[in-house]
Amino acid sequence: MTANALTGQMIIAGTPVRGTGRQIRGFDPAAGTPLEPVYHHGDSSHVDAACAAAAEAFAPYRATTSEQRAQFLEAIATNIESLGETLVARTVAETGLPQARITGEVGRTTGQLRLFAGVLREGSWNGARIDTPQPDRTPLPRPDIRQRFIPMGPVAVFSASNFPLAFSVAGGDTASALAAGCPVVVKAHDAHPGTSELVARAINDAVAQSGMPAGTFSLLFGTGQELGIALVGDPRIKAVGFTGSRSGGLALVAAAAARPEPIPVYAEMSSINPVFLLGGALDSRGAELGKAFVGSLTMGSGQFCTNPGLVIAVDGPGLDAFVGAARAELSGAPATPMLTPNIARSYTSGVESLSQAAQLVSRGEVSGSETCGQAALFTTDAQSFLASEALQAEVFGSSSLIVRCADADEMHTVTERIEGQLTATVHADDSDLDAAATLLPLLELKAGRILFGGWPTGVEVCHAMVHGGPFPATSDSRSTSVGSRAIERFLRPVAYQNIPKTLLPSAIADGNPDHLWRRIDGQLTQD
Amino acid sequence: MTANALTGQMIIAGTPVRGTGRQIRGFDPAAGTPLEPVYHHGDSSHVDAACAAAAEAFAPYRATTSEQRAQFLEAIATNIESLGETLVARTVAETGLPQARITGEVGRTTGQLRLFAGVLREGSWNGARIDTPQPDRTPLPRPDIRQRFIPMGPVAVFSASNFPLAFSVAGGDTASALAAGCPVVVKAHDAHPGTSELVARAINDAVAQSGMPAGTFSLLFGTGQELGIALVGDPRIKAVGFTGSRSGGLALVAAAAARPEPIPVYAEMSSINPVFLLGGALDSRGAELGKAFVGSLTMGSGQFCTNPGLVIAVDGPGLDAFVGAARAELSGAPATPMLTPNIARSYTSGVESLSQAAQLVSRGEVSGSETCGQAALFTTDAQSFLASEALQAEVFGSSSLIVRCADADEMHTVTERIEGQLTATVHADDSDLDAAATLLPLLELKAGRILFGGWPTGVEVCHAMVHGGPFPATSDSRSTSVGSRAIERFLRPVAYQNIPKTLLPSAIADGNPDHLWRRIDGQLTQD
Repeated sequence: MTANALTGQMIIAGTPVRGTGRQIRGFDPAAGTPLEPVYHHGDSSHVDAACAAAAEAFAPYRATTSEQRAQFLEAIATNIESLGETLVARTVAETGLPQARITGEVGRTTGQLRLFAGVLREGSWNGARIDTPQPDRTPLPRPDIRQRFIPMGPVAVFSASNFPLAFSVAGGDTASALAAGCPVVVKAHDAHPGTSELVARAINDAVAQSGMPAGTFSLLFGTGQELGIALVGDPRIKAVGFTGSRSGGLALVAAAAARPEPIPVYAEMSSINPVFLLGGALDSRGAELGKAFVGSLTMGSGQFCTNPGLVIAVDGPGLDAFVGAARAELSGAPATPMLTPNIARSYTSGVESLSQAAQLVSRGEVSGSETCGQAALFTTDAQSFLASEALQAEVFGSSSLIVRCADADEMHTVTERIEGQLTATVHADDSDLDAAATLLPLLELKAGRILFGGWPTGVEVCHAMVHGGPFPATSDSRSTSVGSRAIERFLRPVAYQNIPKTLLPSAIADGNPDHLWRRIDGQLTQD
Repeated sequence: MTANALTGQMIIAGTPVRGTGRQIRGFDPAAGTPLEPVYHHGDSSHVDAACAAAAEAFAPYRATTSEQRAQFLEAIATNIESLGETLVARTVAETGLPQARITGEVGRTTGQLRLFAGVLREGSWNGARIDTPQPDRTPLPRPDIRQRFIPMGPVAVFSASNFPLAFSVAGGDTASALAAGCPVVVKAHDAHPGTSELVARAINDAVAQSGMPAGTFSLLFGTGQELGIALVGDPRIKAVGFTGSRSGGLALVAAAAARPEPIPVYAEMSSINPVFLLGGALDSRGAELGKAFVGSLTMGSGQFCTNPGLVIAVDGPGLDAFVGAARAELSGAPATPMLTPNIARSYTSGVESLSQAAQLVSRGEVSGSETCGQAALFTTDAQSFLASEALQAEVFGSSSLIVRCADADEMHTVTERIEGQLTATVHADDSDLDAAATLLPLLELKAGRILFGGWPTGVEVCHAMVHGGPFPATSDSRSTSVGSRAIERFLRPVAYQNIPKTLLPSAIADGNPDHLWRRIDGQLTQD
C-alpha cells in the first residue's frame, strides 16, 4: 500500500476505523462508473467515540497558543499540498469537475487555512477588553473587568457536495473552528469519500506532527438523517457548520433546537442570487450582459451556492437584447456532468417544475447521459412570479429565471418579496446610479453580499467577505462562512471580574504580552 | 391632568391607545393595595399596528447618522431624569423596592443610554472592513470588497419584572436596539404598568424632539402567552430581547423558531450563580464570608438574575464556620416585599421543593404578609445534588443551597455537571491559587462572568461586561445583554463588491470620513 492509497476507513481521533453500516463508493459522473474502495457508513457508536474524543481533546486543544494553532493550520495546508496529483485526480474523478477547477480549489482550501493562521497571529479574534478599576468611585467602587472570547467546544461540520475541498473536510468551517480552538468532527459527504479520506489523513497527520490531542479531529461517514442527526444531538457537540440543501439544513436546525441544551447551527442553505439589470446598463450592453450571464450560469454545471438563478429587470428593448443573447449562448452550452446522479435527477425535476410555471427561453445542448445537466433558461412576468412559490424555489444547477417587470415600482415590489439570499448583483451604468441608490437599501435587507457588476459565482476569501445572508440563505444571518470573520461563529465572550494577576489569560493580561489590539476603557489600543 | 399624570394607555407610534382586553393595575406589594389607573391589555390588532409602524420607520430610522441616534438616546436619558420624583415614587410603589435602589436604577438606566451614545460616536459598531482590489492578480483580479454591519430590523423587547427600569421599557435591550438602528416594540411587564407608561412617554417625547419616525418606538400591554407570542410571530419583527423566566424565554424561542423566517431570540432566563469557596479562604475567613454572602442573598428580596443560589465547597471546619455565620445572619434577615404576589407564591413553592430535597440550615424572619419573602438556606451533599433536578432548579428569591463536597475532585464533578450560568464566583486566598487555576477552565465553560471575591449581584455597565452565558442562563451564549457589546445582537454584516463610490456608505467610504477604526486588508487602522 502506498502512502496515499485509500483504505475505505473513517478516522476517529487518529485511528482508522471501518464503518459497520451501508456500503458506499465514490462515483465518477463523467465516466458513469463506481470507484474503489468501498466505504461503510458509521453508526451511533462511532458518533459516540468521536464526540468523546473531541470532548477530551477540548481542554488541552484550547489551551494551545494562537501561534501553535496557526502552525497546526499551516501544517494541514502543507500536507494537503503534498497530496498533489493524487488528490486532484481523485477529486476530479469523484465530482466530474474540471481539473483546473479542482487545482484552484486546492489553492483556495490551503489559502483559507493560512488565512486563519494569520487571523490567529493578528489576535483580534480574542476580543480583548479591559475596563480598569475605580476603587474610589462612589457609592460603589468599580471592579476590574476584563473580557475575552473563548471557543465554544467541539464542532460538527457537514461537508458540502459542491465544493469537495473548500467546503468539505478541511474547508472553511473546519478551518475556522480549529482556529477558534474547537475540536472538529466532520461528517463527510458521500459524493466524494476518497477525497474526504485523503484530506482527513492530511489533517490527522498534522494533528500528530503538531502535537495536538488526537481527538482534535475525526471523520465519519453516514447519512444526514441518521448519523448526522445523532452527531448534532450529542451533548458534547456545541456548534454545527453545514453547507447543503434547505431541507438538510432545517433538519439539523430542528435537531439542535430540540436538544436539552440547544446549540447554534450555521447552515448555509438555499439562495437563488438575484441579478438586477438596470435600464442604462441594459440599453448600452444588454447583449453583452446576456452572454456573460450564461457563462456564470453554466460554470461548473451551475452547482454553486451563488449561481444566478434569478434575473430581475424592467421590460423593454434592452432586456430583449439580453434575453436574445442569453438564448443564443445557452443553446450552445454543452451538457456537463453533475456531481451525483441524485443531484442530476433533482435538477431535472426542478427544471420540469419551472417549465410548467414559466415560459421557456432556451435549453442547452441535450444531455447524452443521465448524470449531465442540460442548461435551462425561463422567463415570466412579475405578477406570475409573485404568485408562485415554485418560481421562487432554488433549482440547483444551470437553470435560471428572468422576471420581466413593468416598471421600477414593480421591480421594487419583487425585490421586497423575495426571500433572503447569499448575494444580489446589480448591473448599473452611470445613468442608473439614482435607481441603484434606491434599490440598494432593499438589497441590504435581502442579501449578505451585494455586487455591482460581475457575477456572484466567485467568492473571494478575504477579511471583508460575507458569504451568508438572511434566512433561508442561511440559518443565521449574523455571520459568514467565508472570510476571516467566520472564526467568530465558534466563540463566546467571558468576563473576568477582579481576577488575580497570576490567573489572567495572556490576551487580557497587564502589559499586553501578546501585543494585541485591545479595547481598554472603551478605546482601541495596542498598549 | 398634569404632564406626568398616568393615562392607562399604551403608546403605538406616538399615539396613546387604550387596550381592549383584560384590565390590570399596578400593585403596591409593600402596602398590599392596587394602584390607579386601570390599564388594559392590547390585542393582535395592536401588535399589528405597532409592527406596521416599526417596519415603516425602519428605513428612515436606520438612515439616521450615528450622531443623530446618539443625541436621540441622550434625549431619552434626559427625559427620564426629568420625570424625577414622579418616576421614583411610582416605581417604588409598584415594586416594593427601596427608594435608594430605584434612584440608583434610574442612574443605571440613563447611564446605559449614554453608554450607547458613546458607542455610536466611537463607531467601531460599524465593523468596517475594506479589502482593496488587486486588478492585476492572476488568474483572476481581486475585486474591491467592503463590509459593514447594518441593523436587522424591528426588535421586540420583553420587559423584566425585577428591574423595572434598567431591564424594562428603556432598559439595555431597548437602548442597544435603538443604538443599532432598530425600531423597538416593547411588551411592558404587568408588574409595573405606571412605570412603563412614564418611561414610554419619555422615549416617545424624545422620538418627537429628535425628529425620528413615530414608529421607532411603541409600548404594548398584554400577556406573554397571547400578545407576546403574536409579537414574536409577526413577520416584521427581526429579533427579540427578553429577560424573565426559563419557561417564558423558551416559549419565545420556540415561537421564533417556528416562524417561516426564524429570528434570533436573546432570552436571559435562569441562573443559580454558583459561589465556590476554596479551602484557604474558608479557613482564614469562613465566618466573614458567610455573613457577607447572606447580604448578597437577601438584597432586594433576592430578586436578581445573579442572586447566589448555590454555594459549592469542600466540607470541613472552614465551611462549618461559613454555614454557622450564614445561619446566624440569615435568621435575623427580615422578610421583605417581593415584586408581585405571583412571584412571592412561586418563591414559597420553590422553597417548599428545596425543603423536601435538602436539609434546612435556617430561615429568615417569618413573613407577616403573603407578598413578603422569607429567606431560606439549605444544605446538601454533592451526591444528592447530582442526583436531583429539583436541587439544581432556580428559586427566584432569597433562597440558596450549600453543596458540601467530599474533596476537590467531587467539587470538580459538581462543577462539570451544573447547567450554564450567568456568573460563577470564586473566593480564593493566595494559598488557593493553584486550586483556582484548575477550577477556572471549568468555570469558563459554565458562565458568562467569573468573579474572584465579592458577590455576583452587582453587574457593572461597561465595555468588558458579559451578562450572558451558556444555556439555560441565556438562549444565546454568544452575546451579552449588559455592556457595550450588547449592540452586536441586533446587527448583521453585509459585504459590498465593487460598489460605485457614490453609493458607498460613509462607514466604508474612501478617506474614512467618519474617522472610524477600520480593518483594511486585515489590519486595524484609523487612516
